Amino acid sequence: MSLTAPFPELIHRIKTEGIVQGNDILKIDHFLNHRIEPGFMRRMAQEIASRLSSFKPDFVLTAEASGIAPGLLVAMELDVPLVYAKKYHPEVETPMLSRVLPSPTKGGSYRMVLSQRYLPSGSTTVIVDDFLSNGRTALALLEMAREAGVAVAAAAFLVEKTFKQGHAAITDAGVPLVALAQVDALLEGKVILRGDA
Amino acid sequence: MSLTAPFPELIHRIKTEGIVQGNDILKIDHFLNHRIEPGFMRRMAQEIASRLSSFKPDFVLTAEASGIAPGLLVAMELDVPLVYAKKYHPEVETPMLSRVLPSPTKGGSYRMVLSQRYLPSGSTTVIVDDFLSNGRTALALLEMAREAGVAVAAAAFLVEKTFKQGHAAITDAGVPLVALAQVDALLEGKVILRGDA
Repeated sequence: MSLTAPFPELIHRIKTEGIVQGNDILKIDHFLNHRIEPGFMRRMAQEIASRLSSFKPDFVLTAEASGIAPGLLVAMELDVPLVYAKKYHPEVETPMLSRVLPSPTKGGSYRMVLSQRYLPSGSTTVIVDDFLSNGRTALALLEMAREAGVAVAAAAFLVEKTFKQGHAAITDAGVPLVALAQVDALLEGKVILRGDA
Repeated sequence: MSLTAPFPELIHRIKTEGIVQGNDILKIDHFLNHRIEPGFMRRMAQEIASRLSSFKPDFVLTAEASGIAPGLLVAMELDVPLVYAKKYHPEVETPMLSRVLPSPTKGGSYRMVLSQRYLPSGSTTVIVDDFLSNGRTALALLEMAREAGVAVAAAAFLVEKTFKQGHAAITDAGVPLVALAQVDALLEGKVILRGDA
């Protein structure tokens, strides 16, 4: 099966319940990242885990906050630890690996930090997150992992917007991309999904 | 079994792996909230779920970020949704329920928000979080839930510091408290656990 094959249950829920605002925002936070149905999230995590298992990761890597739920359930399926980057105030200096990222929806910026002792040099990881859009979070995780000597074997997302920069950024970095739903466009209140009839 | 009976596996790991800094900080983030072992987290969630099941919650309530992992696994065991409060910049105005809280470790403050549509009036919830210390997060969740007409039947924590304000704040609010490990004191690099020989 393709790494980006549409996952029917997610596709159905996006089509029937997603709310499109303008040409950029797809609101599905009632099952993705504000309210979560554990059974549904677990079925998605099982599908992602099955696509990632051949990469044999030593741990799953994600970022707080919305990556934790899918990351944890994927890690549980793969029977490996989950490591998640934490967010700090940008002015807090830490002895850890970090990147300062803009926070468009929350205002200002924040520092994403990872303790190097959870990134063993020579190990292999997979990145898991809920959404891929501009890819800033995923790229920061990728850079920090590589800085620590960790190989990033793949990056997996429940939903990706193929029309934003993240898709090219991940594939240009030589990292295989896994997605359960690919949004090709958001047009006047309608969501255009790849593979749609 | 008591709602605060010590959970042996967690007690053992705190005693053998916890790092105490001064008289206030217990560092166990290598299995609690920066790196997570899914199997261990799940065993803790199963124990919490067994202590919470008689309260018959309609959903589990927590706050990002470190509450998501235990909250999700407790919700999965209880077969109910997880709702988590999100953090925004304190100056972002939202139409949702919110409280501005200080952020001692991260500097400044943040706005914790909950969409009222995920808090159905007349329903019952249980709060789940990783740590109870001063109780600001738990109290903000409790207030917002009650403001929405949701009954908070109990509040559960993996670890609570009984010597901080949170313990009294929760019980004074009339909410039964569940904990898997109760830290009575942190003294000169040593952790004093309730029920310890």
